[in-house]
Amino acid sequence: MPLLTRIRGPRDLDRLSPEQLEQLAEEIRTFLVEAVSKTGGHLGPNLGVVELTIALHRVFESPKDKVLWDTGHQSYVHKLLTGRQDFTRLKMKDGLSGYPSQAESEHDVIENSHASTVLGWADGLAKANEVLDRDDHVVAVIGDGALTGGMAWEALNNIADAKDRPLVIVVNDNERSYAPTIGGLANHLATLRTTDGYERFLARGKDILERTPVLGRPLYETLHGAKKGLKDFIAPQGMFEDLGLKYVGPIDGHDIEALESALARAKRFGGPVIVHCLTEKGRGYQPALQDEADRFHAVGKIHPDTGLPIASSGADWTSVFGEEMVKLGKEREDIVAITAAMLQPVGLEKFAKSFPDRVYDVGIAEQHGAVSAAGLATGGLHPVFAVYATFLNRAFDQVLMDVALHRCGVTFVLDRAGITGTDGASHNGMWDMSILQVVPGLRLAAPRDADQVRAQLREAVEVDDAPTVVRFSKGAVGPAVPAVGRVGGMDVLREPGTDTPDVLLVSVGALAPMCLEIADLLDKQGISTTVVDPRWVKPVDEAMAPLAERHRVVVTVEDNSRVGGVGSTIAQALRDAGVDVPLRDFGIPPRFLDHASRKEVMAEIGLTAPDIARQVTGLVSRIDGRFSGADAGAVDSVEPARD
Amino acid sequence: MPLLTRIRGPRDLDRLSPEQLEQLAEEIRTFLVEAVSKTGGHLGPNLGVVELTIALHRVFESPKDKVLWDTGHQSYVHKLLTGRQDFTRLKMKDGLSGYPSQAESEHDVIENSHASTVLGWADGLAKANEVLDRDDHVVAVIGDGALTGGMAWEALNNIADAKDRPLVIVVNDNERSYAPTIGGLANHLATLRTTDGYERFLARGKDILERTPVLGRPLYETLHGAKKGLKDFIAPQGMFEDLGLKYVGPIDGHDIEALESALARAKRFGGPVIVHCLTEKGRGYQPALQDEADRFHAVGKIHPDTGLPIASSGADWTSVFGEEMVKLGKEREDIVAITAAMLQPVGLEKFAKSFPDRVYDVGIAEQHGAVSAAGLATGGLHPVFAVYATFLNRAFDQVLMDVALHRCGVTFVLDRAGITGTDGASHNGMWDMSILQVVPGLRLAAPRDADQVRAQLREAVEVDDAPTVVRFSKGAVGPAVPAVGRVGGMDVLREPGTDTPDVLLVSVGALAPMCLEIADLLDKQGISTTVVDPRWVKPVDEAMAPLAERHRVVVTVEDNSRVGGVGSTIAQALRDAGVDVPLRDFGIPPRFLDHASRKEVMAEIGLTAPDIARQVTGLVSRIDGRFSGADAGAVDSVEPARD
Repeated sequence: MPLLTRIRGPRDLDRLSPEQLEQLAEEIRTFLVEAVSKTGGHLGPNLGVVELTIALHRVFESPKDKVLWDTGHQSYVHKLLTGRQDFTRLKMKDGLSGYPSQAESEHDVIENSHASTVLGWADGLAKANEVLDRDDHVVAVIGDGALTGGMAWEALNNIADAKDRPLVIVVNDNERSYAPTIGGLANHLATLRTTDGYERFLARGKDILERTPVLGRPLYETLHGAKKGLKDFIAPQGMFEDLGLKYVGPIDGHDIEALESALARAKRFGGPVIVHCLTEKGRGYQPALQDEADRFHAVGKIHPDTGLPIASSGADWTSVFGEEMVKLGKEREDIVAITAAMLQPVGLEKFAKSFPDRVYDVGIAEQHGAVSAAGLATGGLHPVFAVYATFLNRAFDQVLMDVALHRCGVTFVLDRAGITGTDGASHNGMWDMSILQVVPGLRLAAPRDADQVRAQLREAVEVDDAPTVVRFSKGAVGPAVPAVGRVGGMDVLREPGTDTPDVLLVSVGALAPMCLEIADLLDKQGISTTVVDPRWVKPVDEAMAPLAERHRVVVTVEDNSRVGGVGSTIAQALRDAGVDVPLRDFGIPPRFLDHASRKEVMAEIGLTAPDIARQVTGLVSRIDGRFSGADAGAVDSVEPARD
Repeated sequence: MPLLTRIRGPRDLDRLSPEQLEQLAEEIRTFLVEAVSKTGGHLGPNLGVVELTIALHRVFESPKDKVLWDTGHQSYVHKLLTGRQDFTRLKMKDGLSGYPSQAESEHDVIENSHASTVLGWADGLAKANEVLDRDDHVVAVIGDGALTGGMAWEALNNIADAKDRPLVIVVNDNERSYAPTIGGLANHLATLRTTDGYERFLARGKDILERTPVLGRPLYETLHGAKKGLKDFIAPQGMFEDLGLKYVGPIDGHDIEALESALARAKRFGGPVIVHCLTEKGRGYQPALQDEADRFHAVGKIHPDTGLPIASSGADWTSVFGEEMVKLGKEREDIVAITAAMLQPVGLEKFAKSFPDRVYDVGIAEQHGAVSAAGLATGGLHPVFAVYATFLNRAFDQVLMDVALHRCGVTFVLDRAGITGTDGASHNGMWDMSILQVVPGLRLAAPRDADQVRAQLREAVEVDDAPTVVRFSKGAVGPAVPAVGRVGGMDVLREPGTDTPDVLLVSVGALAPMCLEIADLLDKQGISTTVVDPRWVKPVDEAMAPLAERHRVVVTVEDNSRVGGVGSTIAQALRDAGVDVPLRDFGIPPRFLDHASRKEVMAEIGLTAPDIARQVTGLVSRIDGRFSGADAGAVDSVEPARD
């Protein structure tokens, strides 16, 4: 990598010749395939933006100018050009983040990996430049897929309103986000792609028209003067220009010279400009280009030559759900499925193949996913909206005000719930079991194993007058955890072996094996423990309070923010029932978590069997001390809810 | 009202002559002004849609066809035509809702009053018609203001994708929602408004072109065949048609015949159609038309002739905030303000007059309000986003992932927090203190009186590395509630008068006077009570646990959902500190509240001083009983958190 290793920052690009820039692009592609093959990561998106990133950093002066990336998983090239070339621990603890990170570099701004935010950030930064009278530039890169999100529209509407506030929007159009982009917008972009740019037309067309004097010149002038003018007649840049945005394009997104020229013009323009760049996801890497599903959007460790995965993954939560959906689809014709641009990642691909007329990809549009589900349910169907847990945040108001208020039977299936780890703070699904607690009527299931996913999904779609939620973890599903008994609607996973048990351990979802391990550890301390899985964590089972009252301490363990989570809600239910048995709730502390493996993150926050067993042991002995009058000594305090 | 009183349902409209329809429209306007003058309500929007509603119900067959209203405050005419003509208790307990209500009528669907949802509902209902092979129609009425919301865009993108799925979208374009509509979209609509419709052009233009044989016919055919065709050259319906939506308009929204004709064509079209109707908010009522601010969007009781308010309102929370903002604006040039299309209702009008370059109306776009605020803060400013508490739900993900994750100093001012009452379930601001608890780093203030609003707003804008929230109630602000002491950062409002106090009563925000009343009632039962106002309810003050430990019972009272609210969070903080003093948390039960006055709602849910005092008395005597071994007897249980 003779050129790449010499790039320490964006300004090192300035002195490279056009040929050297081409060579650099090749080196970067080779680097990406080799590096990401070893660690896993977002490969396809980054292969697509090599030339674009080089051109951006030649034309704009980061960090004075702000170069902003939507979603951020396509910032690897940006990292390489801004002094970060050690990818050996990409997405691993203490290694490079898979997204931009302010802690890593002054060239990074947006860390959030939720899509469609970049235009809003850009609007705010451009307004700040205006108020503070700075002549810095703001350039935002957004994919065509992300333009389907409502936030992008809200931002465009605002950006277009200020004709003389400079802001460059680069539409990185590869016809897909995860999967091919859908909707009216996608069709419009397709039209734009196949049309000569206005500027190119002018250079040719005007000349042609002038050479045909009878019709030519007058027609040109008629068209030019009339109503909306020649521009729209020739090149339907319609939508963006209708909003009031200058449109430049389409530009070949792999032609560095063309990109630089277009970006330089946009930078000079002095108002909001859209630069429409056509790129190819997975560019230059044959295995990616041949993958029709998502062009190697994100990969695990792969063989660099073949693109084949190194470790074959076993059964995972997603596929258990996906296969049960196909069965349900056969049994019930009223079941329809919704995805927000993630048909494959959420496991709906097989359902879509079996029932193509009963699946809706709404684009990166979680709000619409939820509201249209309310409409579908009111129309007599039962929609199942499968979405990553962290992205449901986007549809909170719609779950509450549209689905729940109208008593619609809609099932939300939350994939990647809990700690996901390597994708960092914004991908952890650690909020859902808190914010959904306030939604009246909503029922929330946290299945502990594959059998429970199937069973609880079936229970969920039976509910036709309220929202239901089934949430599960990322990755491989563990072994079956059988119930040894039942109390109310709750599964008993372990009996205490005594009539006067000490601890009621409430296990939530995938943490069941860990909770059984905690119980074993407590057993060794002579502390008798019941382990119960509520299955449905909202509403709190009516059998919970009487069961709790038979124990001396209640302990809850969940893979969700401690704040307002399952433990907190059970505590309230116990208070309401007048059961003042001490309770301790273990979960994720209320802070953003750095990227690392799920296991590492859990160890760091003390969500492990030994840590919890130790704390519970301390608590029990403190209570013994209190009741016996003895001093049980200092106990490690739980990480507090304060932040 | 000789005609109106004879309309029992939509089909009664069928036999009326054009003249009678005109008369009916007049009768409805007279009815609306008289009725709403007496009760208060949404006047301007309903005066604007009289003819449109009549035409809709003549062309479509509700309830078989679904007639859907966005936001729903313009459904009064719809109510009059569907059997609901008793407006004497509009928005009052047991009277008509101010919004559509499924409980009131089979002609109503969407009850949620949050804007921009209707297209999503319509998309879902149209899809259900398709799957279930029904030939029912769906027609959605959306204001131009609501089109600025991202959900509308997400829906349009989806609707446009299915060329043969029938769905009629009526854009009720009055150039404003609450206030004039902003942004690129507004400019585009303005262009459409001043342009001859395509159809009208065809009737005239083609004829003209054909009469000029040299240029005419060939030009017509050239244009017609070329690229995007004649249509865009003549009438720039651009944006909607670019997306793939058939566009009909603009239509005079007060011409019943023209409306019926356009709607009938749209109904027959067999795919998604936009019917662009131009209406006048406040039509036919001089005082509304003269009100530039919001055309009598929503009024209290008024004199029907003059439009002047009957009761002059005293100082309210909103204006206290608004005036302090002007002072802050003068003191700090880095303070900017954001509103989501509600400059006046959230009290930013004076700030906007003083600092026109430092206020941003983003449209009905709470997501963009929050994300652009993150950009503004990152750019060096301190944004204050003033928004109704219930609408912040829309921006939850952005508060979390953009503002908080990036440690941005953004202040959110939540107006109409807590129970607002007469506007019904979706206007109560009862969710914010629950969902915001999970946001790491966020600080939340609930000022109890006008002085505290001013003081806490000032404290909030001093924080430059985390989101801050100041939330207050709707309406008149009560008298000042002085502090008699301080513990940590908390104000003591009442000392217990003994060294061994019984109850620590934690008062949140505007409920301080009620909490003092509770303490007086407890005093009469011989129960000594400390009343403390935490001021900042998140994070929980470090002095809370030690203070709680000195009492026998902790009681929290808040104007927010009990679930995951302040009480629940304090309970967790006490557990974390190992303080197992019994706690009872009073607040709003986890269900949707019917419309009624704030006072009536609070009485109904037991959020009154006598109710709470009675329950606390029972609790204290039960604890006495437990410790003394006696049975204190049955106690009224708190309304449980389960739902």
